[in-house]
Amino acid sequence: MNIETISSAQNPRIKHLLALQQKSSLRREEGLFVVEGRRELEHCINAGMKVECIYCLDNNELSNLSTFNSQFSILNSQLSLVKVTKNVYERIAYRGSTEGIIAVIRTPQPRTLASLLQQEGRGVNGQPLFVVLESVEKPGNLGAVLRSADAANATGVIVCDPLTDLYNPNLIRSSIGAVFTVPTVACTSEECIAFLKQHSVQILTAQLQDSHLYYDTPMAGPTAIVMGTESTGLTDAWRQVADAHIRIPMMGQLDSLNVSVSAAILLFEAVRQRQAPDA
Amino acid sequence: MNIETISSAQNPRIKHLLALQQKSSLRREEGLFVVEGRRELEHCINAGMKVECIYCLDNNELSNLSTFNSQFSILNSQLSLVKVTKNVYERIAYRGSTEGIIAVIRTPQPRTLASLLQQEGRGVNGQPLFVVLESVEKPGNLGAVLRSADAANATGVIVCDPLTDLYNPNLIRSSIGAVFTVPTVACTSEECIAFLKQHSVQILTAQLQDSHLYYDTPMAGPTAIVMGTESTGLTDAWRQVADAHIRIPMMGQLDSLNVSVSAAILLFEAVRQRQAPDA
Repeated sequence: MNIETISSAQNPRIKHLLALQQKSSLRREEGLFVVEGRRELEHCINAGMKVECIYCLDNNELSNLSTFNSQFSILNSQLSLVKVTKNVYERIAYRGSTEGIIAVIRTPQPRTLASLLQQEGRGVNGQPLFVVLESVEKPGNLGAVLRSADAANATGVIVCDPLTDLYNPNLIRSSIGAVFTVPTVACTSEECIAFLKQHSVQILTAQLQDSHLYYDTPMAGPTAIVMGTESTGLTDAWRQVADAHIRIPMMGQLDSLNVSVSAAILLFEAVRQRQAPDA
Repeated sequence: MNIETISSAQNPRIKHLLALQQKSSLRREEGLFVVEGRRELEHCINAGMKVECIYCLDNNELSNLSTFNSQFSILNSQLSLVKVTKNVYERIAYRGSTEGIIAVIRTPQPRTLASLLQQEGRGVNGQPLFVVLESVEKPGNLGAVLRSADAANATGVIVCDPLTDLYNPNLIRSSIGAVFTVPTVACTSEECIAFLKQHSVQILTAQLQDSHLYYDTPMAGPTAIVMGTESTGLTDAWRQVADAHIRIPMMGQLDSLNVSVSAAILLFEAVRQRQAPDA
């Protein structure tokens, strides 16, 4: 293992790290992304991703190599460890409350829809439970949805925009690592609809008009909860293939909930319905 | 009504506006706060708050005085309207997607706990429903909780930190105006516990240890859902006075949900239980 110390933000490796954080085109081109924080890195390693390089704040306990090896014992031999000085770390860190650890990770092969149903132990009470987002307004929203999907042990999150960059730093941060724990697929709406129909997964579209209260809708069988954007909602393509339209009653003066909040309310209603008998 | 045009960010009124956005001490001292966006301003006016000054982007349709008067017909005669040029607006606006309207509002008298039960039409199915936050880690989190509380038509949100600044710009923004639609009181935990006990409101504390699944817990009667911070949870003072401890099952790999997501899941379980018979 190589160990290097970097004390200048002008160092080419630091410039490259900053560019990876900022440019999705570079992330795609090089097949690399950046993760910050100890917990997020642990989820990333648990998911079997390959760590290329770890940047540690010089005075951080983690930069002690032996601690490091025992904590991240599965790291590969090509891993390089870089200690950076405080001024450099402040340039590369996103978060104020720094944990002193930032890593460059190799982007895994994209998941396929078919792979989602081949996982052991996912879903609720043995039945698949998906969140489908027709599009994503902000990467941070997708991250927050992933966090809610992790809590409900959803089978997966499907984003109907094939160009979605799952490794956007805002997405990783708002997911607090759920992007590494929840199987996520980006595809077209057509592909997603064909997949759900083929596997007899009921499609519940979240929409205010022409809909039933969500808690009156059975969700114990295989279910996909489909949501549009906060501003424009779902397209007709999804409304037409739906098995049911469901709504969360908006009982106040505002007209929408945050998409991750809506996702969580609907996912946990499925959890309640599936677990209620044995709880 | 006075109309002024300002084209320099160095203008004393603009400097004062920026200071009000940045300094809670100045907001408190002067009894003023800043609200951005048309929808947020409308909620603010609907709540009966007094608008002191409106800053409009010069080319914005709202800066047409007649449109303005018809839209905000209840504005008082001391209101001043200021048109600002694009360069000035960009300095004072928080949001990228600018709606071209920022206002300075007089802070209303703080609400009392007693006032929360004197409101017509709040609560669910005629029964009080409160969210209590023992403390607030970030103003944005409180704003997001208020948004969830608006959707469930909660009776009120009680923050057990008497120094909470409800008019922090991040709070207003993340609430998308719910801080003006949901009655909110800041007080001590002792005051809050005394209030809830006096009015026979059951206290449900959200905690993972020693708790029941939330959906097995009756919430049809007067209920307060009490939550701590994501990092440290609730103090013993609250656990000890609780009528029941409840938890949302964490079925994934992460160990917590966002506080506004947890609040929404619990509030909407109360909605479900209260409305299910007639839905």
